Amino acid sequence: MRRLDIMAECSEPGPGVTRLPFTPEHHCALKLLREWMEAADLAVHLDDAGTLIGRREGEDSSKTLLLGSHQDSIPHGGRYDGILGIVLPIVCLEALRAEKLPYAVEILAFADEEGVRFPTALLGPRALTGTLDLNVLDRRDRAGISVRQAMSDHALQPDNIPALARSSEDIIGYVEVHIEQGPVLYGKKQSIGIVTAICGIERWSVSLHGRAAHAGTTPMNIRLDALAGAAEAVTFVEQTCRQTSDLVGTVGSLHVTPNAVNVIPARADFSVELRSGDEQLRSNAAAEIVEHIKQTAAKRNLDVSIEQTYVQSATQCDADLSGRLEDAAKSKGFPGFRLVSGATHDASAMAALAPVAMLFVSCRDGISHHHAESITSHDAGVAATVLTEFLVRYVPY
Amino acid sequence: MRRLDIMAECSEPGPGVTRLPFTPEHHCALKLLREWMEAADLAVHLDDAGTLIGRREGEDSSKTLLLGSHQDSIPHGGRYDGILGIVLPIVCLEALRAEKLPYAVEILAFADEEGVRFPTALLGPRALTGTLDLNVLDRRDRAGISVRQAMSDHALQPDNIPALARSSEDIIGYVEVHIEQGPVLYGKKQSIGIVTAICGIERWSVSLHGRAAHAGTTPMNIRLDALAGAAEAVTFVEQTCRQTSDLVGTVGSLHVTPNAVNVIPARADFSVELRSGDEQLRSNAAAEIVEHIKQTAAKRNLDVSIEQTYVQSATQCDADLSGRLEDAAKSKGFPGFRLVSGATHDASAMAALAPVAMLFVSCRDGISHHHAESITSHDAGVAATVLTEFLVRYVPY
Repeated sequence: MRRLDIMAECSEPGPGVTRLPFTPEHHCALKLLREWMEAADLAVHLDDAGTLIGRREGEDSSKTLLLGSHQDSIPHGGRYDGILGIVLPIVCLEALRAEKLPYAVEILAFADEEGVRFPTALLGPRALTGTLDLNVLDRRDRAGISVRQAMSDHALQPDNIPALARSSEDIIGYVEVHIEQGPVLYGKKQSIGIVTAICGIERWSVSLHGRAAHAGTTPMNIRLDALAGAAEAVTFVEQTCRQTSDLVGTVGSLHVTPNAVNVIPARADFSVELRSGDEQLRSNAAAEIVEHIKQTAAKRNLDVSIEQTYVQSATQCDADLSGRLEDAAKSKGFPGFRLVSGATHDASAMAALAPVAMLFVSCRDGISHHHAESITSHDAGVAATVLTEFLVRYVPY
Repeated sequence: MRRLDIMAECSEPGPGVTRLPFTPEHHCALKLLREWMEAADLAVHLDDAGTLIGRREGEDSSKTLLLGSHQDSIPHGGRYDGILGIVLPIVCLEALRAEKLPYAVEILAFADEEGVRFPTALLGPRALTGTLDLNVLDRRDRAGISVRQAMSDHALQPDNIPALARSSEDIIGYVEVHIEQGPVLYGKKQSIGIVTAICGIERWSVSLHGRAAHAGTTPMNIRLDALAGAAEAVTFVEQTCRQTSDLVGTVGSLHVTPNAVNVIPARADFSVELRSGDEQLRSNAAAEIVEHIKQTAAKRNLDVSIEQTYVQSATQCDADLSGRLEDAAKSKGFPGFRLVSGATHDASAMAALAPVAMLFVSCRDGISHHHAESITSHDAGVAATVLTEFLVRYVPY
């Protein structure tokens, strides 16, 4: 917890933590992580995707267990999201310095999971899994700096990324500790939880086009009010997703044009995001919502455009790794509470390379992506105890 | 028509005209109006409410006839709304430069009728009628600039506003030329119309406060989604106002915070506007809507604030002035078509000082508050002919 407080100083000014990839704040974080990794007797290097890697050899180093998470935050985010999953395993490995383990371990500190600075994310895990589309290196941040330029300025050689791909045969799996970022464990008074699956996500961008007209002189029956149409969609998304606990849906963004008190809205642009651990449930809901929006537009004589802007399949966590986490928890007197992850994580991308598992830590009031994000030292201690026990017990087949 | 095209250049960039009060665009408009007023031999000054006044004396200047309208537009509005009622009388008085009239005339170019920049409107006419609540000077725009500050930055002295009040005894009346902003005259193939009454109007500012949370990890049943609450309000306003043809209601403005695709909306700020020629009908609808919003907020555990930001009673136009407009029209071969105004106008506020009358000009397809707003030069010519004839014929009692 002390180290996380120190790490929180590697931030732009303002409330909470603002640490974007390939920035002075990122550099500040890597300096601390390198120091702590070395104190845990790890051999440290920075790969050309900006991932800081701390490795310890095993009695047999032909198989490697990967641990880790991301160093970056959203603007004004919390001090646990991502970085907890790097600092906590370092502490565990430091405690295990004198122990011999029958496999190698690496801790991975990925540069960019949040996708806030650049319109891309998960560079680090995608480099390791060999799934990175190198075209994303040309994408630019708001200041016009490309990913490639930012990496070069950070003394990285992005052209070497293809050489970073690992072979599945050498990897036991990837285990990620992360703050839950939701209210489930806190509500159930659980310190930790074991993730069964990471939700799939799809996002839609919807535009309804009506006609601006004077709010006083245009009778109700000839209006083409884009916001009135959007309001029906917002209500329908909520109703649809309330029908089952395995689905969430959100209209998070809505822009009205021209957005004046006395003008009938000509245009409403809004997002629809759906998440579920169940692919079929999610795609059925999406189809229903898209159909409802089209019917609403037709009924109201509005023009409509609907575009799917993002889709990511659900990731199932590995039953064997998750079972071993549960065994470790139970052996220390903690129940192996299971839950679905509503958020995406580096583990989602790492699943292309190896079996993945995740250990969640309870998040106060479920508040995350906010400077008030908080965990207790007790719960962090439980997670460290369970992860350490997992490492000690693990024997590769 | 040429002058209106030139005036349309006094605008922020983008489609149509965006000319808000106390801005560089407003300053640009005043510069042109001053030039054209001076060309019509008017004595010009800017009063401390930001109203540009051009005056000609009469053979007897103890009585003054007021003409005018507002210089401001909505964002991306048309080039006729308001400004037509300033530029057209200037042209008429320029044509009458050599004529002697038995009364003085003033043309008034009011700063702010639309109420778009600040949550208040009609500063200019309310200053003249002595009905301005000086507390509105402390209201702020979205940039946090108060009305008082904006006026001071415009070289005005708002503390002098109380001294601007006129005496009813000196004023013959106020006649406003305006684009209809509705579909009635266009549908009836009338160039002009004479207004019988102006609808009453009230505006409400509503804020719903929920809680920002992660759109993936927060189950539907514990969300406090401010936008979902606002959507119910938008739907209810439309349903309520569809129940009778004598009422219109609009949610024209809606702002979502933080407005991100993957964050549950913490806050929704929106406007509700109601208009009717029937005061009781309007206030009953307002009470129903306010009650519905409060119940929705209670049901959803949202905090709510609802404030009436504007209210204006329905205004009857003066029978004598309107009859004289009709006589002038008929003498030139045009029928004196009568209609109700669904829009509010500066005349609504000026009625506190003097009898008012309005001359509407046909609006293509009824489209206004939109950059496609259009009138024909023929119809503008008819209005100028009728107004000129009215001025020549007018003899104060």
